[in-house]
Amino acid sequence: MRQKVYRLPYFCLMQSIKEISSLQNPQVRKIINLKEKKKGRENSGLFVVEGQREIKMALKGGYQFTSVLVYPEIFSLEEAIALMKNSNTEPEFITLSKDVYQRLAYREKTEGILAVARAKSHDPGSLSLPDNPLILVAEAPEKPGNLGALLRTADAAHLDAVLIANPKSDLYNPNTIRSSVGCIFTVPIAIGSSEDIVRFLKEKQISIFAATLIDAVPYTQADYSGRCAIAVGTEATGLTASWVKNAAKRVVIPMEGQIDSMNVSVSAAILIFEAKRQRLAQ
Amino acid sequence: MRQKVYRLPYFCLMQSIKEISSLQNPQVRKIINLKEKKKGRENSGLFVVEGQREIKMALKGGYQFTSVLVYPEIFSLEEAIALMKNSNTEPEFITLSKDVYQRLAYREKTEGILAVARAKSHDPGSLSLPDNPLILVAEAPEKPGNLGALLRTADAAHLDAVLIANPKSDLYNPNTIRSSVGCIFTVPIAIGSSEDIVRFLKEKQISIFAATLIDAVPYTQADYSGRCAIAVGTEATGLTASWVKNAAKRVVIPMEGQIDSMNVSVSAAILIFEAKRQRLAQ
Repeated sequence: MRQKVYRLPYFCLMQSIKEISSLQNPQVRKIINLKEKKKGRENSGLFVVEGQREIKMALKGGYQFTSVLVYPEIFSLEEAIALMKNSNTEPEFITLSKDVYQRLAYREKTEGILAVARAKSHDPGSLSLPDNPLILVAEAPEKPGNLGALLRTADAAHLDAVLIANPKSDLYNPNTIRSSVGCIFTVPIAIGSSEDIVRFLKEKQISIFAATLIDAVPYTQADYSGRCAIAVGTEATGLTASWVKNAAKRVVIPMEGQIDSMNVSVSAAILIFEAKRQRLAQ
Repeated sequence: MRQKVYRLPYFCLMQSIKEISSLQNPQVRKIINLKEKKKGRENSGLFVVEGQREIKMALKGGYQFTSVLVYPEIFSLEEAIALMKNSNTEPEFITLSKDVYQRLAYREKTEGILAVARAKSHDPGSLSLPDNPLILVAEAPEKPGNLGALLRTADAAHLDAVLIANPKSDLYNPNTIRSSVGCIFTVPIAIGSSEDIVRFLKEKQISIFAATLIDAVPYTQADYSGRCAIAVGTEATGLTASWVKNAAKRVVIPMEGQIDSMNVSVSAAILIFEAKRQRLAQ
């Protein structure tokens, strides 16, 4: 660790500023582990957020940061400290050498800032839902990119929650964060087994609209005006039996072409925005 | 080239069967060039299709093949010949050694068959449109994956055409073919400059519904019952001025969350399926 003089505003004097220039630094290795390993994230309850926009979204979502790392040639320490100023979080600030920054950052990202944040609990019980909620359930979303796209749609539609049933990867996978453009932090998300989530919805008297090909009505013929959870499964196999069995309504987007399915984030968006259209027209 | 005895049905006896086991074979190098280089595809008017499903879709779309290559351990030559039987195409059949097949195939693909096909003309003038067409215009789609997803949606919605304005990559990019799951071959596609496509739509008296944020009505308030082209631009910058200026209607999907755009294939799907809903309800 070397000493370096920064021109910092007054309030920064109390901050501890560290500088890391070695790839062998244990903190660097820890961050690489958090980025690359689901186990690393799960064991520590920490994950990595890259980019100013994503960090701002996480702050909006009330996430706490343990450290903020900048490469000062691109993103100034002053700006990073200002970014955290009005948050309820007091991270350690670290400046990185070019080598270390390049090792830690996504290839395409050249924003000069990343941060380590604490994971939240995603228990369905902790959701606070309005009187007449509109919810998306995604069962076993296969690709981080698909989950990210679903979360962007959920944000745009201002859904009351996204419930992830039987997840295939952890929520804080860097590709999910990136493809959600930070919506992962502001959309209310709960995670559980399909069994638990079906039970939760039943307890809350929220009707399940299951997207499925069999015994289903065209999606425009269903009435989404009440307490409503739209459930979508995987592109390959759809929803599992429990969702179909417990559905108030089975709905289908008629496929009029050569293929029998659309991208899951596309299907979900069509269903969600039809529900919104109906609810707005009331 | 080695000799090998195949048990083939009678009609195959007239087929010439070649075997390639060297990575240095000029035909192998040509196929790699077609897969990897836009220039290679454009100069030759040829491109590569991988996988049985995609090849079947291309046959449905009336594409002609110049050669069909199989790795017989996975996909039998008999089956490949049968696949081409009722097509209007007489390709050369080639069997590949494991090495050569692995070099030519996508890592994830283990289908054992690929083929070289002739590109089609995509002149707007060659489209045959019904009385009351519903069309999608995608201006400058940035990623092959996005274009593929748009084409899947266009297939599912049975759109009358997809017009690609100012394309950023050539149509036959392997990632576009793959992400479209072959819909690229069955959806009527025309390509041109934005200027040419605007002129084409005006000549055909097809109204442009431009997805844009400025001076736009909520998309559910527009009337899509007439001759209709829904135009979407890039996520970053939207449609260029010419589309906005020439639009019969500017429409917006209200963004009620933290971010200001959705994935372009998601936005397009919401607009297309609202248009379909309205046209079906008439």
